[in-house]
Formats: sequence, structure tokens, C-alpha cells
Amino acid sequence: MYKVYGDMLSGNCYKIKLLMRFLQIEHEWIHVNILEGETHTDEFVAMNSNAKIPVLQINKSEYLAESNAILNFLAEGTSFLPDSGYQRAKVLEWQFFEQYSHEPFIAVARYIKKYLGLPDDRLEEFRSKQAGGHKALGIMEQQLGDTDFLIGNTPTIADISLYAYSHVAHEGDFDLRDYPNIKKWFSKLEALPNYVTMDRANG
Amino acid sequence: MYKVYGDMLSGNCYKIKLLMRFLQIEHEWIHVNILEGETHTDEFVAMNSNAKIPVLQINKSEYLAESNAILNFLAEGTSFLPDSGYQRAKVLEWQFFEQYSHEPFIAVARYIKKYLGLPDDRLEEFRSKQAGGHKALGIMEQQLGDTDFLIGNTPTIADISLYAYSHVAHEGDFDLRDYPNIKKWFSKLEALPNYVTMDRANG
Repeated sequence: MYKVYGDMLSGNCYKIKLLMRFLQIEHEWIHVNILEGETHTDEFVAMNSNAKIPVLQINKSEYLAESNAILNFLAEGTSFLPDSGYQRAKVLEWQFFEQYSHEPFIAVARYIKKYLGLPDDRLEEFRSKQAGGHKALGIMEQQLGDTDFLIGNTPTIADISLYAYSHVAHEGDFDLRDYPNIKKWFSKLEALPNYVTMDRANG
Repeated sequence: MYKVYGDMLSGNCYKIKLLMRFLQIEHEWIHVNILEGETHTDEFVAMNSNAKIPVLQINKSEYLAESNAILNFLAEGTSFLPDSGYQRAKVLEWQFFEQYSHEPFIAVARYIKKYLGLPDDRLEEFRSKQAGGHKALGIMEQQLGDTDFLIGNTPTIADISLYAYSHVAHEGDFDLRDYPNIKKWFSKLEALPNYVTMDRANG
């Protein structure tokens, strides 16, 4: 059985839980406390030398890190990942966009505020995240005006990747009033069978 | 015929050129000058709403952005991308590592120094990139002590993704003396048939 090392309050980890629930993949969830340094123990670094969650343990010797790599691995052969070609590449385009142009703004702002309590010495950095975050949300809003989901009209792992931190963007002070398409898209994803909220009790 | 919009001095663009040469994929290379704002024209933003290079034009209506998504698209069915399963997911693990834990340190430091001339107001940011860059290089060094390439003993697009900015890391003041495995790996990649250097003349 798969083991997942993560924290449900981390969007990157929550992505894995959401997909595993949507696909009804049996797994054990092992909570890791990053603020207590639990990703820096020898045991953890042996699983992921980059010392980050989430990590998927596939079997005794195979581990996989990077949330979006894990999603691709688990979604292979399901409706959440197109078989090949242009549509499959567009999923990756959105996922790399998420890690480079969305997460470093929206997730980091949320982290500074929610986890660190917005300390004075991070205030300037926190404010500097607004422009990049709104740029990313604007790009999503535009796409979601054309299609129900990010890739056409059925949900894929691209939606899961972008949903994870977008739906809690307000916790990083991103006001979503001007993004009606994104809010409609939230509702569509939240209506899918077996959806779970981002809550440690669901880990 | 494919068109690639890019700049050979950008590692993200150079990745595409390297793979296309290794695979002998015919294409037209269209140079884009980012410092002159050429990624922000209406025409360019219609191809990639995130206003970044590289962009692959597949046909009249299909465009693909994000260097690593493009590599996956082009490498499908070749030896540079395992068919499925764990090895294929490990390629993505390295590519997401590259975009989140490598490029923002090594490529951005190089950009500040080489393109912007290390202005005083970016000096602190430039210096702050050293620790993260060396952490990323250390993780690669460790893997390359175990295997010839990042995924086992044959080259994949994971190697191309990590090679692009690693081999010019010195331009961002990263000293590679303590990374003998990385330097041997450079030589192996540079010995592959049809290798080209990162030079605008090869665009």
C-alpha cells in the first residue's frame, strides 16, 4: 500500500490527497511537521534528499518527491491525465506554471501569514508577492472563461495542482472578488465525488 | 514545421534546442529579445499569456509554453523519455526540482550578473542565491555519484533540464570545483552526437 508523507495544510501535499480520494486509491497518510524539522532527519532525507514534503513511498525501495510528479504517476491511465500528445503536454504546462509563476507568490504569501504570523522582517517580502500572485490568477481566470476546467471540459491533475493553493489564496491576502470564473471552477471541483477539504482531520 | 520562439542564451530555451538537435527534429528558431519587451507584445501574449520564452508553435492554433512541458512533448516515444511508470515519474521529479529548487537560485543569480551587470540594488538578492544554488548542486552531485545520468545510465530530458543552467552556473559565481561528478556528467552530455553549445550563433 502507498504511504504518503505530508501535511494536509500544505497545498502541495493536499494535491496528493485530493487525487487519491478522487481515484479511491488506498493509502496510509503519515503527518510530517515541517516546523519541527521533521523533513531534515536522516531518515527523511534518505527518502527525499531535497528535504521537502510530500513524498510518496511506492514500495520498500522506491520513493517519489515533487507533488506534480506524484500526481502524474498516480493519474496515469485515468481520466485525470490525457494519454498523450498536446493535451497531456498542456497539463504539464499548467503544472510548471504552478510551480514557477503561482506557488512562489500565492503559497509563500500564505505561508508567511498563516504559519509564521506575518513577522515584521517578512512584511516587505509578503507585500512583494501580491503582483505576481494576481498575474497568475489573471491567467487562470482568462482560461476558465473559455473552458470549464483548465484543459477543456473535464477535470485533470492540472486543476488539482492549481486548485490547491488558489482556493486558500485569501489566507495570503489575495482578494478573489474579481475572479468569477475561478470561483465557479472552485465549485465544480468541490462538487466532484469524494472531494475532501484541506483539513488535518482528513489526512 | 515546428517554430521555437526563444533566446539561445536563456537556459530554458537552450534546453529545447539541445533536445531538438539530439533528436534531429527540424525546426525554425525565432530569436526573441526579452530585454526589449518582445515577450509583452499582443502577438506574443496571444501565444503565451504568461509572456515568457520559450514557446513551441506546433501548428497554426497549437502553442506550448514551459520548457519542461515542451521537452516532454518532443521526447515522447524516444529514449530521452521512459515510456511509463516510476522512471518516467523520476524524470518529472527532477524537472520540477529544477524549476523550484535550482533555476530560481542558479539561473536568477546568473541573470542578475550576466544580463543586468550586477547592479547595487540587486547585490543582496544575488548573494542570497548562493546557499540555495549549492544545495541544489549538492543533490545532483550525490545522484551522479550513483548513476551516470540523473535517471540511471542513459541520458533523458531530466539531464537536459538540469544541464542547461548548471553548465553556466559559474556565470552566477557558483564555483563547481567541489562537484567532480557534475563535471564528469557535463562531459558525457557534451560528447553526445549533435550536441551544440549555448550560443546565439547556434539558434
